[in-house]
Amino acid sequence: MKVLMETSKTALTDAKLAEEAGVDFPKLWNYVDQSETEFVDELTALVSQPSISAQNVGLKECAELVRSKMEKLGLKTRLISVPEAPDVVYGELPSDRKGARTLVIYNHYDVQPVEPLEEWKTDPFKPEILDGKIFGRGSGDDKGELAARLCAIQSLVDNESSVKPNIKWVVEGEEETGSAHFHDFVLKNKSLLKGDGCLWEGGDRSTKGTPEVHLGTKGLVYVEFNLKVGSKDQHSMYGPIAPNPAWRMVNLLETIRDEKGKILIDGFYDDAVKPSPQERSFLRNNEYNLKELKESLGLDYLIEGKTCLETVTNLYYNPTANIAGFGSGYLGAGSKTIVPREAFVKMDFRLVANMKAKDVLAKIKRHLRKYGFTDVELIQYSMEDPAKTPVESEIAQTIIRCTEIVTGSRPNVWPTSPGTGPLSLFTDKLKLQTGMGLGVSYPGSGFHAPNEHILVQHYTQAIKELICLFRLF
Amino acid sequence: MKVLMETSKTALTDAKLAEEAGVDFPKLWNYVDQSETEFVDELTALVSQPSISAQNVGLKECAELVRSKMEKLGLKTRLISVPEAPDVVYGELPSDRKGARTLVIYNHYDVQPVEPLEEWKTDPFKPEILDGKIFGRGSGDDKGELAARLCAIQSLVDNESSVKPNIKWVVEGEEETGSAHFHDFVLKNKSLLKGDGCLWEGGDRSTKGTPEVHLGTKGLVYVEFNLKVGSKDQHSMYGPIAPNPAWRMVNLLETIRDEKGKILIDGFYDDAVKPSPQERSFLRNNEYNLKELKESLGLDYLIEGKTCLETVTNLYYNPTANIAGFGSGYLGAGSKTIVPREAFVKMDFRLVANMKAKDVLAKIKRHLRKYGFTDVELIQYSMEDPAKTPVESEIAQTIIRCTEIVTGSRPNVWPTSPGTGPLSLFTDKLKLQTGMGLGVSYPGSGFHAPNEHILVQHYTQAIKELICLFRLF
Repeated sequence: MKVLMETSKTALTDAKLAEEAGVDFPKLWNYVDQSETEFVDELTALVSQPSISAQNVGLKECAELVRSKMEKLGLKTRLISVPEAPDVVYGELPSDRKGARTLVIYNHYDVQPVEPLEEWKTDPFKPEILDGKIFGRGSGDDKGELAARLCAIQSLVDNESSVKPNIKWVVEGEEETGSAHFHDFVLKNKSLLKGDGCLWEGGDRSTKGTPEVHLGTKGLVYVEFNLKVGSKDQHSMYGPIAPNPAWRMVNLLETIRDEKGKILIDGFYDDAVKPSPQERSFLRNNEYNLKELKESLGLDYLIEGKTCLETVTNLYYNPTANIAGFGSGYLGAGSKTIVPREAFVKMDFRLVANMKAKDVLAKIKRHLRKYGFTDVELIQYSMEDPAKTPVESEIAQTIIRCTEIVTGSRPNVWPTSPGTGPLSLFTDKLKLQTGMGLGVSYPGSGFHAPNEHILVQHYTQAIKELICLFRLF
Repeated sequence: MKVLMETSKTALTDAKLAEEAGVDFPKLWNYVDQSETEFVDELTALVSQPSISAQNVGLKECAELVRSKMEKLGLKTRLISVPEAPDVVYGELPSDRKGARTLVIYNHYDVQPVEPLEEWKTDPFKPEILDGKIFGRGSGDDKGELAARLCAIQSLVDNESSVKPNIKWVVEGEEETGSAHFHDFVLKNKSLLKGDGCLWEGGDRSTKGTPEVHLGTKGLVYVEFNLKVGSKDQHSMYGPIAPNPAWRMVNLLETIRDEKGKILIDGFYDDAVKPSPQERSFLRNNEYNLKELKESLGLDYLIEGKTCLETVTNLYYNPTANIAGFGSGYLGAGSKTIVPREAFVKMDFRLVANMKAKDVLAKIKRHLRKYGFTDVELIQYSMEDPAKTPVESEIAQTIIRCTEIVTGSRPNVWPTSPGTGPLSLFTDKLKLQTGMGLGVSYPGSGFHAPNEHILVQHYTQAIKELICLFRLF
């Protein structure tokens, strides 16, 4: 951290910053460095408590642990019960200033299952520090961020300071199973969650260590097309006279997307926004080449023949019609001569800013009718709107500034995460401008996989950035 | 049988027929009717001996049983060992006339596995006669025909008569696993299998009881297209920049067949013959309507909007490009957001008379190159040429005549079976005109399925028809 601070373009001795923040950052960061062991213990305590939502393991205990840690820091806490779902932990820390702004914070305390257990080098719930890395389920997703936020507040408290904005902190317990009940929870608690900006989970470091800031999530319409033509497979000798649902599904898919990837559904692109000039300049200036991008995203392979700028522009601004699964007929080894009785295709349509999941679903349904595929059943799974927070927003600018102050250089800023989450609940329903950044993970963290881990170095860096946020927002 | 005989258009008292056959048919058929119990026992003895080639069960014992039954009837028999395959049973019965013609007979003594066992109403290897039906694995496919042929010869022997042509009878033991070694066996034994005509297995009765005669088999080219783009599935949030093999497979399939079913591979139809005027007249005159056709083929559903004549013409004269399996990505319940790492399509191309499997495979390979799908691996499974015997041939005319003599009305004659088998080995390599008819099964027989059975009535009818064949060929 010292090295990074010395190269900072923003002088921390700058009188304006000191006055604005009302704290001595170098002193606080020194404190963070000295408290490293203790802060890592905060995280390992959380990781040691299993909380697997998919298996209903340890959720109550983990919610109480999070609540008690918040309470210890002076937050007014409670567990809010959600019907048929784990409790939401809620904590409030009122600012001592008049007219303070309100920062809403989102985390989740549940983690993914740990299987396959034999691939772990350490016990997933007995965290170990090896080679400057903290191993354990949830070390990154999302207990690492949760702990870093706790430690940032603790640093202020321990140094006779306080958080500048009002804090409203909501920590749910079923994110890893799809936040099925969180939607209703948010809509029922709109006034509770009112604020001036929101810090979401997520936000990681590139392979080079550069902070990544994402200002939205993509939308998603996940559907399955299903066509059953009979109760049993037919012998394929009847191929000339028996309808083949696999072929019919291919014929449907042909009408949905051309071979260059252009989606042919009427009006599909109508509402999709293109990058603004400012966003284009961010895309251009983010420090990446194709090799780094692949590495950073953990991808084996990319569509070839594109520049890095084209690739990231496509990634963040192209809605997709992705085939996630196509199943029909005989799928075993060797050959079997049948006309399948059934075919199904699972497709996820990722939506970019300004598109609406409901509209897209209606367009898909219209498309099926237009091309006469009324025999195809449409099964609807996820529906999620995209979310976008402008880069000019206060929360985005503050997050960017915090990374610059601590690391001394600009972060990579992206218009959105490539992924999807319930973020539009916050941006659209709660009208909260929401940023994702100041996180603890990096491309090698292995979320949802065995040997999940983060670097101790990123963890303490995040705590420092969060201290900035809690004094500058 | 009596009823059918009385309505016969061919008077059995006809002096010419009596002279030609040199036997008293009504007397022989009477004998068959009286020997029904004994003849059914012949079949049940064969069925009682399990002989599952896929599971290597009882093959030696069954081969020996068949051999000994042939030997008992006066055939010169031997077991011919085939490397890495069950023995072939071979039997010869020389004619006592000078210049007699030679009839080659093909059967197989192996049967399909019996699973799922719990769906059988009887023990598959303890045959039972219920309601005029003989239940047991192999009762139809192919021990029923084998036994009927044995019983036809026995009837002649028992009545101090004999078989008119020389008989060369070959019974293989791995038909149900694809006759993998039979090809080599035939090519190595070309002179042994020389003859003037061949009676194949198969040939059944329609739901109305009308005999069906098939004069060929279709060819088959079975291939798998396989495309792997990476070692693991990617998260579908990377859909805009990660190549999707399922889409690429759809794009390949689009180039292979249009939505009306026309195959777009260059030159695919070049060698396919259309029905001759005589074949057209057979198709037109066979006693069927769409409902009966569906029932008779055991199909739940047909391509709609076609007349019965169009449907049978398509069935017998249209080569196909059938998708037998399409597998890619997530195939479980619900949704999973991935870009699949791999896609595969299993396709069987059925070939009609005059097409060559080798040519078609070459055209498919050329097609992949033409459209740039050189990244797609082609895995080749079955390759089988179609086989066709002209309806004017002696064997076809004799089979047709035998059914007419016994049933008193014309059989349904089809240019080919809709299915595929190693028949071209006989028609093309051995130059043997080969017919399929005089069989024991009907559409409800349930070949390869639980509760396989035949009607006792069809069994004795087949024995009578076979007696005709053995005296008229």
